[in-house]
Amino acid sequence: MKRTVYFVSESTGITAETMGHSLLSQFDTVDFEQVYMPYINTEARAHALCQRMQEAHARDGVRPIVFATMLDQDIGGIIKQGNCFYLELFEQFVEPLSVELGVAPSRKSGRSHAITKPSSYTKRIDAINFAMANDDGVRPDNFRYADVVLVGVSRSGKTPTCLYLAMHYGIRAANHPITEEDFERGDLPPELVDAHTRVFGLTIDPQRLQAIREERRPGSAYASAERCLRDIREAQTMFKRHTIPVLNTTSQSIEEISSHILRAVKSPNGTAA
Amino acid sequence: MKRTVYFVSESTGITAETMGHSLLSQFDTVDFEQVYMPYINTEARAHALCQRMQEAHARDGVRPIVFATMLDQDIGGIIKQGNCFYLELFEQFVEPLSVELGVAPSRKSGRSHAITKPSSYTKRIDAINFAMANDDGVRPDNFRYADVVLVGVSRSGKTPTCLYLAMHYGIRAANHPITEEDFERGDLPPELVDAHTRVFGLTIDPQRLQAIREERRPGSAYASAERCLRDIREAQTMFKRHTIPVLNTTSQSIEEISSHILRAVKSPNGTAA
Repeated sequence: MKRTVYFVSESTGITAETMGHSLLSQFDTVDFEQVYMPYINTEARAHALCQRMQEAHARDGVRPIVFATMLDQDIGGIIKQGNCFYLELFEQFVEPLSVELGVAPSRKSGRSHAITKPSSYTKRIDAINFAMANDDGVRPDNFRYADVVLVGVSRSGKTPTCLYLAMHYGIRAANHPITEEDFERGDLPPELVDAHTRVFGLTIDPQRLQAIREERRPGSAYASAERCLRDIREAQTMFKRHTIPVLNTTSQSIEEISSHILRAVKSPNGTAA
Repeated sequence: MKRTVYFVSESTGITAETMGHSLLSQFDTVDFEQVYMPYINTEARAHALCQRMQEAHARDGVRPIVFATMLDQDIGGIIKQGNCFYLELFEQFVEPLSVELGVAPSRKSGRSHAITKPSSYTKRIDAINFAMANDDGVRPDNFRYADVVLVGVSRSGKTPTCLYLAMHYGIRAANHPITEEDFERGDLPPELVDAHTRVFGLTIDPQRLQAIREERRPGSAYASAERCLRDIREAQTMFKRHTIPVLNTTSQSIEEISSHILRAVKSPNGTAA
């Protein structure tokens, strides 16, 4: 049986979606059709959503599920009274927090993903620009300006992880792909070793690496089993020599890798694993 | 008064952090020290956190606040009994959802940001690679392979928005900066106009654009008031000619702009505004 799910909010809906996804992930045997409904900020849009929910009920044979973070009681009330199983994710925590803090909530919607602190927002945008400009080790002289540098063989997941760290945490992340030049030298570039920044090694299982490279350049030496194995083995030797903590990206998402890195960066003697 | 806040989880902690941020944004007069604590997945780590909470209490003169999404009752219990105001964000929704679905929860932690569906994860990574390869209009022939193309003058926020759309929603987003060549031609490039994809125009207030460009190239013609004004005015004319929906990025975050775009892309006759 399929269940239609709506993530509903007056603004971006990112909180409703994140919490809703998390909750649904506890029920992985159910087939969910997930619909993202941001900016339901007028009564007309709420009524239009109720109409869609009616249609989903008729189609699925069972009422849809709504994950909502609504601050406006009137608009939220319209959806709640619609044909659905309604879970308000926000409201019940606001009151106890207000009591604990001794401060009344502002009741303004859309604050959490708006630019409320321009300095921290600018930091994130600057970090994205830094990650873009320092992708793929194009400017080794810049490693010393990075908060972290990710090192790994080609296609080990460096670029998406750098972008994630920049976008979400304002971390200036550069990356260096271990190249043929490094293999010949038998070591990482001196700019990296001397950068005095936090360096993390990314590794990946050889079979997985081969599959990714094969898709990119079918039948090439670059994608061969021997080459993938050699690249990874030599990279490991370099990581070990410089006591660089290593993360295996084979079955970890960029969110998971980033969280491990963040944990290590934030704690002075933290380890990545 | 400062309040120390911990976002705690057995895995990435992204859900705890997103919900916690949202809730805190309702109390913007309070000064929060926010600490991200992912991978609290052993009793030893829970006890270490309790120790930190004690220190925070002594320092702040008031107990810290914990936003937690813990599935392991033993580990969660240790923190809950620590010196803190503990809000468990997840638990109370799992049971009603389970009843509604008629399915028991898996009680596995770390599912929501793991690679549970390799196909949708691969789609996101591919979209990031696409956004990187098609940034700044370097390959206009590729516009036709994009789900959306963002168009705007230099420094109007195209790149971070493309990356966000790719990273979070697996949307293949390319972008085209309106260049001197376009201004001379008096129109957008034919590859864009003929691409038959969804095009969105990004605009920005001239003063804000000038400030951003001035920081990048101080005293340049590129950063002059006249040039900024001209760029924006001519871009608007081009958007109007091709009935391209326009979003103003002056005071909107990349999350907000992306949500507007997503809303428009998902609804067949949706508008961006």
